[in-house]
Parts: sequence; C-alpha cells; structure tokens
Amino acid sequence: MSTADVMGKSAHIVFAHPEPHSFVAAMADTARTTLTRTGWRVTVSDLYAKRFNPVASAADFRNRSRPDYLVYPLEQRHARTQGSLEPDIVEEVEAVLDSDLLILVFPVFWFSAPAILKGWIDRVFLSGTFYGGRRVYDRGGMAEKRAMIITALGGREHMFGPSGIHGELANGMLRHLQQGTLGYVGFKVHEPFVAYHVPYVTQKERETMLERLEAALAKIDTRPLVSFPSLENFDDQFRPLDGTRNKGA
Amino acid sequence: MSTADVMGKSAHIVFAHPEPHSFVAAMADTARTTLTRTGWRVTVSDLYAKRFNPVASAADFRNRSRPDYLVYPLEQRHARTQGSLEPDIVEEVEAVLDSDLLILVFPVFWFSAPAILKGWIDRVFLSGTFYGGRRVYDRGGMAEKRAMIITALGGREHMFGPSGIHGELANGMLRHLQQGTLGYVGFKVHEPFVAYHVPYVTQKERETMLERLEAALAKIDTRPLVSFPSLENFDDQFRPLDGTRNKGA
Repeated sequence: MSTADVMGKSAHIVFAHPEPHSFVAAMADTARTTLTRTGWRVTVSDLYAKRFNPVASAADFRNRSRPDYLVYPLEQRHARTQGSLEPDIVEEVEAVLDSDLLILVFPVFWFSAPAILKGWIDRVFLSGTFYGGRRVYDRGGMAEKRAMIITALGGREHMFGPSGIHGELANGMLRHLQQGTLGYVGFKVHEPFVAYHVPYVTQKERETMLERLEAALAKIDTRPLVSFPSLENFDDQFRPLDGTRNKGA
Repeated sequence: MSTADVMGKSAHIVFAHPEPHSFVAAMADTARTTLTRTGWRVTVSDLYAKRFNPVASAADFRNRSRPDYLVYPLEQRHARTQGSLEPDIVEEVEAVLDSDLLILVFPVFWFSAPAILKGWIDRVFLSGTFYGGRRVYDRGGMAEKRAMIITALGGREHMFGPSGIHGELANGMLRHLQQGTLGYVGFKVHEPFVAYHVPYVTQKERETMLERLEAALAKIDTRPLVSFPSLENFDDQFRPLDGTRNKGA
C-alpha cells in the first residue's frame, strides 16, 4: 500500500489574483473546499498574499557554482544539491513534490498568467528536479502527478477555436503553459476550466460558473487529459522517428 | 512632413536577462548599435538593471476609482486620466508611445518571457491607451508602430515546426506574445529573431548569430511581418463574418 493510499491524495493550489474578493479568488476557494470535501488534503499558496518574489535572479543563490557568470538552471541544480536554495523557493518546491495534483488558479493577463505566477514557475520548476536532459514530457520529473489550470478571462467563448479571432485557447494562446510548462515537466494535464466573459456577467451567472467548477472538481479523476508528445516517438536528439508525427502538436 | 521624417525614427529596446554578460545581453547590444548606426534614435530599458517591479497590484494606484474592489484595467484608465500612474509605469508608457519600433530582447523561460518582462507588459500596456473595446489588432492603439522579438533558447530548431516535438514556435508556443500581446494592441510584428541551442554552441557560432542579427536589423524595414486577424472580418461581437475565416489563426 502506497503512502498516498494511507494518507489520502493531496493537492497544492497556487492562486494569483491582486483582488482578494475577485471571482478568481472565489474559484480558488471553490477548488479548496470541493477537493477537501471529496477527500483530498489541500494546501494553498496565495502568491499575492505571500508577496511572492517572481524575479529569477542571482539573488536566489547564496553559494554560486559560477560566481562570475549566472546560468540560472545550472545554479538551480547546484543549490538543490548543496541545500542552499532560498527558503521561499524550497517551500514551494516541497509543496509541489508532496502533492499528487497541482492546481493553478489565475486570471488571464495577456493570454498568459500574471507575472507573479510566471515567476513562481521560473523560480520553482527547478532544473534537475522537474526536468533535465531527456527527462521531459512523459519522462519528466512530475510524470506521476496531475495538474489543472482554472482561469477566467474577459473574452467570450466564441472568440476562441479554429475560426475564432484569437485562435485556439488551451492549445493555442495557453499552449506555453499547458504543454510548454505543465506538460513539459511531465504532469498529466486535465482540460482547463475556463470562465469566460467574467467582468460582464451577472452574479447569478457567476454562481452558475462556480457550481460548474465544483461539479468538475468533484469528479476530477474522470476529467479528460490533454494529449502531449511522447518521447517514444522521438530520437535522442528529439527528432521525430520515421513515420511518426507529433500528435500533441 | 511628419515629426518622424524630421527627427528620424526611434526605437525602444526592452531587455530582460539576469546575467549582464549573457549572449542575450550581447544581442540587445547588437540591436542598439545596429539601429543607431542605421539612423534610429534608440532608448533601452534594462529591466533587471532597473529592478523593474513586475507585480501588477493595487499599489500601482494612489487614487482609486473603486477603493473597495480592484479591477486592474479600470484603474489603469482612471489613473491615466487623472495623471496618477506610478512614475515607473509612466516612464515606460511614454518610451513606447514616443517610439516607432518596440524591440523585446529576452531569453525564453518556459516558452515565454521571464516574469520581469511579463510584468512589464502587465503594468505598461495600459487599458484605454494600448487597447480597449474594439480597439484591438489592426485597430489597436499601437497600429502605427512596429515591434519585434529577439530571443534565445536552449532547444534546437528541429524541435519546432509542424512535426517538431514542441510544435510551432512563433505561432505556437510564443503565440501569446506575438499575437496575443504585440499583435493584440496593434503593432505590426516582424518575424522574430531566434537564436537556438545557445548554451551549447561555440563562441564562433555565437558570433555568427550576432552577425545574422546585425544583418537582419540593418534591413528591418524589409523583414516580413506576421499575419494577424483583421477586425474587418469580424462583427461587433468579434464573431467571424460569413464566408471568412481567421487567416491569422
């Protein structure tokens, strides 16, 4: 029997919105309560409340392997080995490593995450621990875990898709997060939950969206997973093997 | 005769890399010297040197239109009208408005920009000034200007494209920046300059890449532009008009 079977599954929610009473904050709270109610142990990092520092810089490393020239991923590996990572990074790394499910909750800013969450990724997704060499996609460091994005935006659903003005959302505008970040380090990624047109809808419609989110999370184990490349279809230099195409592309 | 004809064209370079001696810093320097040599007035914002604050928050607004509930784009418009924007934001807004060409120079972190640059976008691309309502894409606030991304990454060129493991780069992983950010506010966007495999190549190969960048910027006026949606093909609700498809999608 694994630890997860004994202890119950655990989820880490990372929440980033500058307004604590926003609809996105309500979505984060719905995620926390629904997962708790359905048997998950849940931890939450509220990045604005924590004043999380999003700037990856030399200041992250007290004992540099190369004091003269900063190669950020090399110093991540060195600091992890030496035990000299900054405490705010360690806390988040351990929270992700200790959980079976990572949930990112944020408003879409410029078809991506707010900078405070982007910097959480830049600083926490350590080279050597989350990925490295050929340890990416289905061989990535997080291959035993799942992840999901919960987000809100001002646009309407008809603005996205093959003929939508902005093109695809999950596999287009948000591809750098879905595949390029979560998928890249190995997470099995559930389809995102997207609340559209949020600043313009009624309170009643917002409540309906929260009910839909609650229903989705109560049965998250059956929520479809996004398809990503498998390293089985690529050679040692990541060139596609004969006769195969990148089905996730 | 326009002001630009009299004064010469001007470019604003926004540079974001934590290592001042990096190859990306050398690309920013090549951009500055090449554009200057070919007749541009050039300003540079080095975001790490400036310790630019990338976190969009209530602290950006001294006099709120809604003190009880933060809607960031609404407060951007209010503060711009009231003249109460924070000085670090005003400085960057004016630098972009005063220039004909915006150049972003950064290393690819997680198939996107480092958080310090993402936050520059979050805080500087003001609602009401850069975009608003139907003032997006070819009707966006920056429609008279051009932009270009200059970037470097560890991956090789064969990892991108229709059958590459990561899919398309400019129109895939970087679509949120190319179309969703620069294109969205109206910039005509040149094809990006991408230096591949940078951490692993020889000094000679790096010099060759800088020479290629110099040649590209010396004739930037003829560099191809990326195709984006035109509002002419969409109705007032951004629904595609009959018989048209979003060619930029």
